[in-house]
Amino acid sequence: MDYDLTEFRALACRLADAAGAAIKPYFRAQLDIQQKDDASPVTLADQAAERAIRDILHRERPKDGIWGEEFGQHNITAEWVWVLDPIDGTRAFTCGKPVFATLIGLTYQGRSVLGLIDQPILSERWLGDCQNGARFNGEICKTSDCVEFQKARFATTAPEMFNGEDRARIARLTNAAKIMSWGGDAYNYALLASGHIDLVVEKCLKYHDFAALAPLIEAAGGVITDWSGQALSHKSAGDVIAAATPELQQAALAYLR
Amino acid sequence: MDYDLTEFRALACRLADAAGAAIKPYFRAQLDIQQKDDASPVTLADQAAERAIRDILHRERPKDGIWGEEFGQHNITAEWVWVLDPIDGTRAFTCGKPVFATLIGLTYQGRSVLGLIDQPILSERWLGDCQNGARFNGEICKTSDCVEFQKARFATTAPEMFNGEDRARIARLTNAAKIMSWGGDAYNYALLASGHIDLVVEKCLKYHDFAALAPLIEAAGGVITDWSGQALSHKSAGDVIAAATPELQQAALAYLR
Repeated sequence: MDYDLTEFRALACRLADAAGAAIKPYFRAQLDIQQKDDASPVTLADQAAERAIRDILHRERPKDGIWGEEFGQHNITAEWVWVLDPIDGTRAFTCGKPVFATLIGLTYQGRSVLGLIDQPILSERWLGDCQNGARFNGEICKTSDCVEFQKARFATTAPEMFNGEDRARIARLTNAAKIMSWGGDAYNYALLASGHIDLVVEKCLKYHDFAALAPLIEAAGGVITDWSGQALSHKSAGDVIAAATPELQQAALAYLR
Repeated sequence: MDYDLTEFRALACRLADAAGAAIKPYFRAQLDIQQKDDASPVTLADQAAERAIRDILHRERPKDGIWGEEFGQHNITAEWVWVLDPIDGTRAFTCGKPVFATLIGLTYQGRSVLGLIDQPILSERWLGDCQNGARFNGEICKTSDCVEFQKARFATTAPEMFNGEDRARIARLTNAAKIMSWGGDAYNYALLASGHIDLVVEKCLKYHDFAALAPLIEAAGGVITDWSGQALSHKSAGDVIAAATPELQQAALAYLR
């Protein structure tokens, strides 16, 4: 490995601190909700948080690329690119639920090397990379040892993600799993990294939704791929399966076929 | 009114304290999940929390009735009856999500007079009754002034609640609302009482799931009925609609017809 992530970890934490400080005043406050072209909601909080992160990156890492949900792409052919979702779970955020998250991913030469999931209201932070493992608030965390679908705690965000045959596939998973929990967005993947959820299956995520997830899940001992078992990249369609173990991933892939 | 709720409010808070103390050691711990006859999950935490509440009631209010999710009915023809759901949202609880709740309802001569929703991990408590209004952590709270469905934040727990034609009805609501948020269980009703969610629609709740909700929602200025607009009671089928305003309730009822 020809790079050292130590300073990047510290910077990612400062970026999350800045985003959290920008978000907190808006949580459970009166807030205008706008609709974007893709029909997803956005608020001043989403924008303020991404701006806070970008301000620091422009100042301290001017050569790095940025790929953000709210303010688009900048220099994304750079060696280091930051992939940002300032508030993943804006719907939950606007309902006053403290289960949204700030997502910060980092790629080196196109490969995801670091991922951070931050819940600023609860002061919960998951950070994973290939050099320092996966950590929840600084302590090592790992996925569960669940290998059987019938014993799995399965989570996914919303039925609207799934149409036609996919809806039937998810219903099969829902019926077979031990526990089914709806809602959660990226917070589900964070709980998977800590061993509290065993499986997450979702559809049509954007790159900024999942770029931060893979380094964390993999460092925690889990598996994260698309629905055909392929590694995720910025070219992925965004159909994501994350599992605590390879065995559970294979069992879930069989249900999805 | 021929009764004073002051002491009952204090007692309800002590019951919730005891339940929270029983629950906390189990949150995000390794925990066996059993399935009940109705296929819903139960853990040692649910049982320990209800037992903690019942111990206090047996000691301090031996003549009162108890209607609990885990340990059944005791003397429910008494003047005062406590209706208990020690962990509403056991699925969320087993996934490590801090959005489950302890529900404590109190009826006087069959009428719901006090309701408490407690989230012990976040130290969040909603308490409502007809004499002291609705309070969140001691401060007065109220529902939003949302009257239009197109501006509403709509929440419901799980698509599995709805079958056949009901599923199409909920899809119509989901498409028409400004924001749709899945998951949440009783926590959604608590957020409605604080003005962060505008509408909750659910199906087939049990009496222990909704007995604590009506006194809180009504004291906060909202409306809660069944799907035909009738008041909820222990005889209700458990099809619940809760809205921030009467206008929004009427608009939602029209979608459900």
